Order: sequence, then C-alpha cells, then structure tokens
Amino acid sequence: MLTDLFTPSVLQALDIAGIFVFAISGALLAVRKNFDVFGIAVLATATATGGGLIRDLIIGAVPPAAFTDLGYLVTPLLATVLVVFLHPQVERINRAVAVFDAAGLGLFCVVGTTKAYEYGLGLPFAAVLGVVTAAGGGVVRDVLANEVPSLLRWDREIYAVPAIVGASLAALLIHFEALNPVSSALSALAAFLLRLCAIRFGWRAPRAWHRRSAAAEEA
Amino acid sequence: MLTDLFTPSVLQALDIAGIFVFAISGALLAVRKNFDVFGIAVLATATATGGGLIRDLIIGAVPPAAFTDLGYLVTPLLATVLVVFLHPQVERINRAVAVFDAAGLGLFCVVGTTKAYEYGLGLPFAAVLGVVTAAGGGVVRDVLANEVPSLLRWDREIYAVPAIVGASLAALLIHFEALNPVSSALSALAAFLLRLCAIRFGWRAPRAWHRRSAAAEEA
Amino acid sequence: MLTDLFTPSVLQALDIAGIFVFAISGALLAVRKNFDVFGIAVLATATATGGGLIRDLIIGAVPPAAFTDLGYLVTPLLATVLVVFLHPQVERINRAVAVFDAAGLGLFCVVGTTKAYEYGLGLPFAAVLGVVTAAGGGVVRDVLANEVPSLLRWDREIYAVPAIVGASLAALLIHFEALNPVSSALSALAAFLLRLCAIRFGWRAPRAWHRRSAAAEEA
Repeated sequence: MLTDLFTPSVLQALDIAGIFVFAISGALLAVRKNFDVFGIAVLATATATGGGLIRDLIIGAVPPAAFTDLGYLVTPLLATVLVVFLHPQVERINRAVAVFDAAGLGLFCVVGTTKAYEYGLGLPFAAVLGVVTAAGGGVVRDVLANEVPSLLRWDREIYAVPAIVGASLAALLIHFEALNPVSSALSALAAFLLRLCAIRFGWRAPRAWHRRSAAAEEA
Repeated sequence: MLTDLFTPSVLQALDIAGIFVFAISGALLAVRKNFDVFGIAVLATATATGGGLIRDLIIGAVPPAAFTDLGYLVTPLLATVLVVFLHPQVERINRAVAVFDAAGLGLFCVVGTTKAYEYGLGLPFAAVLGVVTAAGGGVVRDVLANEVPSLLRWDREIYAVPAIVGASLAALLIHFEALNPVSSALSALAAFLLRLCAIRFGWRAPRAWHRRSAAAEEA
Repeated sequence: MLTDLFTPSVLQALDIAGIFVFAISGALLAVRKNFDVFGIAVLATATATGGGLIRDLIIGAVPPAAFTDLGYLVTPLLATVLVVFLHPQVERINRAVAVFDAAGLGLFCVVGTTKAYEYGLGLPFAAVLGVVTAAGGGVVRDVLANEVPSLLRWDREIYAVPAIVGASLAALLIHFEALNPVSSALSALAAFLLRLCAIRFGWRAPRAWHRRSAAAEEA
C-alpha cells in the first residue's frame, strides 16, 4: 500500500525522521528527569519505537518492525548522543523539535492505520491503531518516566485530535479506495497542520462538564 | 465452551455490561485527575479492554477481541459521554457502579479462565489469566493515571481474592468436566458476592508480618 | 542451544534461582510500599517473569514460558511467603540478595539473547532482548509500584551496562560460532562480576553533559 505509494526511499527517510524526533523528545525528558546516559538511551528508544511496537504486537506482526530494521535501533542512539552532548542547544530549538514531532505524528498515524488494515483489521480498529502508532510512544515515555501522560492531560495542547483526524482520513480513503500517494500525504499533512495550529494557538480539549468552574477556582 | 453454555446474546449482553462498568470506573478516575475529554476516553477504553487485551496477547489470540468487535470500541465511548456530562450524578451512584464492577469482576474471571483454557493453556495458568482478565484493566487504568494500582494497596477492600476464587472455581469445574451454564454462573456469582461482602464489611487482606504494629503507629 | 550446552537440570536450576531472587526484589519493594499480601505476590511475580514475558511476546513465543512452566508460577509465590514472614531478616541479608540478583542478571541476559536468536532475530536485536530479559522485570516492578525505574536513575549503580556486556558477549559468541557451555558461562560470569563491582565500588554512569555542575550544586 503506502510502500507502493511513495518511492520506498522517501517513505523510509520520513519514517526514520519520525523515529528520530520522537527519540529526541524522549531523550529530552530523560535529561530533565536526571537519568544517566543509559536511561536516556532507553527512554529515547522506548519513545521512538513504543507506539509501533504495541501496534505490531496487537496485529500479530512479530517480530515487530522495531526488531527487524537496524534503523530503529541506531536512530534513537544517535538522538541520544546528540541530546547528551547538546541538550541545552536542543532545548533552545524546542520549537523546531515540536515541528518535527508534529510531522512524525502526521506520518505515523497514516502509516499505522495502513499497516493495521493490511494485517486484516477492520477500518475503525485500523484507525485506532494509527492513533496508537502516533501517540503510543509518548505514553510509554511518560509512564516509564513516572509522569502523568501528557496525552491525557487537560493543560496540554491537543495531541490526540490531530492523530484521530489523520488516522480517520486514512481509513476513509481506504474505504473509498482512494488511497494514493497524494491523498495519503494530504492526510498526514492535515494531522501535521492541525497539531501545529494547536501549538501555535494553544488549542486544548474541554474537560468534563462542571469542571470548568472548578478550573477557574484553581487558576 | 461458555459460548455454548449461555445463549450467545445473554453472554454478549453480560460482556458488554462488564465493559461498560469498567469503562465508567476509568472515566471517573480520569475526571478526578482533571484529564480532557480525549484523556477520559483513552482511560475508559484502556480500563475496559486492558485485561482482556493482555490475556489475548499472552494466549496468542491476535488480533485481540478488543480489536475485532465494535462493541468493545463503542461501549467505552458511550461510558465516556455519560461521565463527561453526568459525572457528579455518576459519582453519587458510586455504590451502584461498585455493584456493577463486582458483576464485571465475577463474569470476566470466569470468561477469561475459560478462554485461556480453550487456547491450550494449563489450568493453573488459565486461572491466572482469568484473574488478569478481571483485574488487569484496573491496573492499566492506575498505571496510566500515574497512581499506585489500587489492586496492590493494603488500604483497599480485597479485589484479587474474589477474582482468584472465581477463576479457581472455573478451573476446577473444567478439571472435573463439570463446567456448564449453571456451574459457571455460580462461579461468577461466588466472585461477585465475595467482592460485594468485601466492600460492605471493609474486608482487607493482611500485609507482611510485623507491618501490623507499624500500621498501628501510623494510624 | 544453551539447552544443549548445560545439562538441562543445571540450566533449569539456575533459571529458577534467577526467578527466585528477582521475585525477592519485587516482594521487598512491595513490603516497603505497604502492599497487602496479594499485592506482594503480584509484584513478586511480575518482577520475576516480566522481562522474559516481554521478550516472548516480541519474538512470538506464545504462550510465553512463564505460562507453560509451573516453576515460574510457584517460585514467586514461595519468595512471597518467605518475604511476608521474614522480610526484616531478608532486608538484613540485602547484600546476599544483591549478589543473587547479579547472578540472575548475568544468567538472564545470556539466556535471553540465545532464545531470541533461536527465534530468528538478528544478533543486535537478540542482544537487546537479552538486556530486556535481564532488566525488564525490574522496570515492570518499578512501574507497577509507581516509582521511577531504578534502571534509568542516575543515583543507582549501573545495571544496564553489565546486562549489555553479557548480552553482547553472547551475541559475539554466536556470531563467531563459539557459543558453548564454557563460553556462555563466561559471558554470564562477566556480567555478574561487572554488576558486583558496580555495587562494591559505587560505579555510576554519567549523565548528560552540563549536568555534572548542576549535580555538584544539588549535592
């Protein structure tokens, strides 16, 4: 599917870029948590590969991609080395990291949905696994670092919504047999731009009813 | 097995009811943790399907039931909507929720044991997976919410014991080839009633030896 | 492979000894966290079997060894009983427990690497899974107990490095077709001794660059 849509080298380059920026976000959190260099490498790798790993276990793609392609092993280590030596500089370009992270989010929700569908899952479940692929690594990162997952928190810009939009678009395209290089790239782009707007304009999702007044008091 | 024991529609209705109440417990915790609506939906879904998902990965039933039956996807979302708009009312009927949760506990420990046995596991391991099915979702819920799992805590009414009793009864019935609709319903009922009594009478499990005096000091 | 290297009974005895000491470490943490006896049993079992369980799910060895061999079920329960009744004494021999834990670390990183290779994984990934086998249970333990995994923390003696050394040695031996009872025992021994030295001499891994001065201020 997607593999045929793009030239493989383009797709692979995008994939590795996504792995890299997710690994950066894991490594930066590890530095903030004062982990040692091995802890940084573990958190970078878990963040980068966690979402795809969970997807592959659920669809029965064993051994998972993360354990068959050396790029998934080496890329997080490169991100680790970069962050270990240059983390103040990387923090300073946090905005650039956020842009790449949004690109990874867009790419992974589309790729994840497509792969799950190829393994025979129904489209609603394929879309769920697209979201898991894009957002699961960040949840694994936060659980390992003993933090409340930023995906779930109210005081963070929306992350799930762009992933849901991108994965749903991909699922709809598959349903209408309209998945092609252009349309799948546009799906990823929609998720990417939605996430960028969320960061730029501070978009948050609402909380439970009645919580708003309580929040006003807290603030 | 169990599928033949009950009429499928009865079993399915019980199953969905169990999913629903587990999802309610996840959604309520998410509201208390101040998550946004997507965080509530994620925690509700993870709580409702987490135990069965772990069981299915371990017995090799991929894709897991949670990813093949739309009821497992839609039911937690309904529970989310209910809790988002009515959570003060749902909190107020917390006692009713606890009763349904106990029913889910009873049902899932028996169903989980039976399914694991059908997939070829030995009876002791099938019983362990019955307990995982019943109690695993709550552990996933607490880990994602960054809380100490209430399953493990001393200051909570026993939850593991009813699940162990129900799963062990189911395993014994299978061993003596006495599993039928009535006997498996009685196993689930035993776990259900034991959990209700634990809540009603505040039954707790002991801690490690020597801890009791320390507890007295703490109190 | 390894199964042929040692007489099965020796290997099995070592394996069960590793399970036992990992279970002790889980049970001791559970006592410190004030869990009830069932919480202690759950944490002991998860610590002892978690690493191998994750490895088996990733390589597709389902049902995992932990769910086919009664020793994996009974041994953690024995460790639980021991700790519940004698935990002050067990704490007092914490140094002995640390020695056994180091032995389990050495054994499991070699066994895990070999098993993953037998299931068809490439050697770098087999070595990663060796490390997961040896260190994964401790991470599961800390996540369930809602603590920052001690594997990742800077203020703990190195644990990952001995596992990486042992797993890499085993992978190199496989690569050069030199894996035999003596050489694999030496690999496990290297990891074991490295871990013992780390404890004895307080070896820690460095943190990210620039963190050292910050650490000096904190101290």
